[in-house]
Amino acid sequence: MNIEMIRAAADRLDGRARVTPLLSSPFLDDLAGRRVLVKAECLQHTGSFKFRGAWSALSAMDGATRANGVFAYSSGNHAQGVALAARLHSVPAVILMPSDAPAVKIANTRALGAEVVVYDRATESREEIGTALAAERGLTLVRPYDEPLVIAGQGTAGLEIAAQARALGVSEAEVLVCCGGGGLTAGVALALEAEAPRMRVHPCEPQGFDDTARSLDAGEIRSNPSPSGSICDAIVTPAPGELTFPILKRLCGPGYVVGDDDALRAMAQAFQRLRIVTEPGGAVALAAALTRSKADTVIAIATGGNVDPTLFTRALETL
Amino acid sequence: MNIEMIRAAADRLDGRARVTPLLSSPFLDDLAGRRVLVKAECLQHTGSFKFRGAWSALSAMDGATRANGVFAYSSGNHAQGVALAARLHSVPAVILMPSDAPAVKIANTRALGAEVVVYDRATESREEIGTALAAERGLTLVRPYDEPLVIAGQGTAGLEIAAQARALGVSEAEVLVCCGGGGLTAGVALALEAEAPRMRVHPCEPQGFDDTARSLDAGEIRSNPSPSGSICDAIVTPAPGELTFPILKRLCGPGYVVGDDDALRAMAQAFQRLRIVTEPGGAVALAAALTRSKADTVIAIATGGNVDPTLFTRALETL
Repeated sequence: MNIEMIRAAADRLDGRARVTPLLSSPFLDDLAGRRVLVKAECLQHTGSFKFRGAWSALSAMDGATRANGVFAYSSGNHAQGVALAARLHSVPAVILMPSDAPAVKIANTRALGAEVVVYDRATESREEIGTALAAERGLTLVRPYDEPLVIAGQGTAGLEIAAQARALGVSEAEVLVCCGGGGLTAGVALALEAEAPRMRVHPCEPQGFDDTARSLDAGEIRSNPSPSGSICDAIVTPAPGELTFPILKRLCGPGYVVGDDDALRAMAQAFQRLRIVTEPGGAVALAAALTRSKADTVIAIATGGNVDPTLFTRALETL
Repeated sequence: MNIEMIRAAADRLDGRARVTPLLSSPFLDDLAGRRVLVKAECLQHTGSFKFRGAWSALSAMDGATRANGVFAYSSGNHAQGVALAARLHSVPAVILMPSDAPAVKIANTRALGAEVVVYDRATESREEIGTALAAERGLTLVRPYDEPLVIAGQGTAGLEIAAQARALGVSEAEVLVCCGGGGLTAGVALALEAEAPRMRVHPCEPQGFDDTARSLDAGEIRSNPSPSGSICDAIVTPAPGELTFPILKRLCGPGYVVGDDDALRAMAQAFQRLRIVTEPGGAVALAAALTRSKADTVIAIATGGNVDPTLFTRALETL
């Protein structure tokens, strides 16, 4: 992985992915006691940054391979990103989703034209189902994070952050990233290493699913005790990736860990102060910006906004 | 009023106002049966397009006049726009607001540093209170719409729409604008006349407060029977302005009128499909795009997103 791969991904994404705005509010600055900038990736196509990596991967495949179709497993945001990227390339997509994924994510993935295969996390192995499906139908797996082309695509958000912050006169900041497997975190860290070396990336995770923070502390990969059970479904993964972790270890940390209540309160602040919709797993970086960071300037990525209305209403009740 | 005034305002706003994104979703296209683009002015500073006009007016004042302070009356969005523009110029602002304005708008205006004077719409005259206050303290009135510098500022949103649509290959469209006194509608229409002459502007209003639609039908200014009582508080005004109406008559129409339920449903769609927060009065143009327009391509301006959480929750219940 290197910066040239991210720049090449940016060329492929040009005119396809949205350049999402870097938002701010004097009210958030007051609340946090520091300057807070929010990169609104919830406004990206499909409502999360995942479209970047999916488009990066599909657009780099050779045409014949891509034409056979692609395959992904995901609780929902990678699913939608791959589904839309496949639709825009007019190739089939099969997505394996756990039965406890948010309803809106399953519905959206289907509506984007993908074939959704639902499995039971407790009793079935997605790897087994996936391997069989892929072999049988000649599909190419698009990994959610441990894939260089995906990391490069997610890293384009970092190139935008560097340029947008520079336009505001900001060159030094903590950059907080909602972190699951670490694809976005690694990509953004690589982009900023090249473009804004005085910014340091801190992965942000929910309590109980802080595998990345613990792995960074330990200097080696640690796993989560439980595979599911957080409202932050988008960023619950077993452990940092084999490709992403060495990048995180070299460039990022320490990690910030926030409670579910902090995430819900951050969603409410994003609603009221920025007028954007975030999901819990997309709001943990803003939550950390409001409650954990001690930097003068903090840039939080609002990574996703695919949330069921009842959960969003619960967040609003914190206001 | 002419396009040069809008271009001059754009120069003054450069780096101050946000260039808000033009969003879209395949789900909205399917729902509407046409291509729908949404200019997300709810992401503008203070959560509505009003910051454009306020900054335009304050930045064009001579320094000595401005230093004495400014004054505005508003149910909330113009209030916040003027309050922030005054704060950024380090000059005092006094804002006269009706007691039935949304709580969040009164609180925000105060928190932005303005002195808020609350009056009772039923028993007090804002003009009398305002004239007395302005005379006593040497304040300069910043009118919400019938003021060339304000119209020019709002028109900068139209310049952005023309450029952003062109980048997507769109030169012909209906442009739907949530319309109160007509400042934004007139400014955008003037901008598009110069920059995208195959786009036609249609003002959008809530049922019972469709003074602009009726005025355009009649060819002369018509008033609303009631001064208040809509959930679309942001765009309830007595009648089109003396300056704005001739522009609307020359360039815009017919108007689209939508029910409160349509506005609430549009808010829910904007939440789910675009991940933006809109208030009812900021969602009537999207509502008209989804239920009234027959054009192949429609561009709706989401004009504002300052909404109390309880009302937003009510909108989500339509999903």
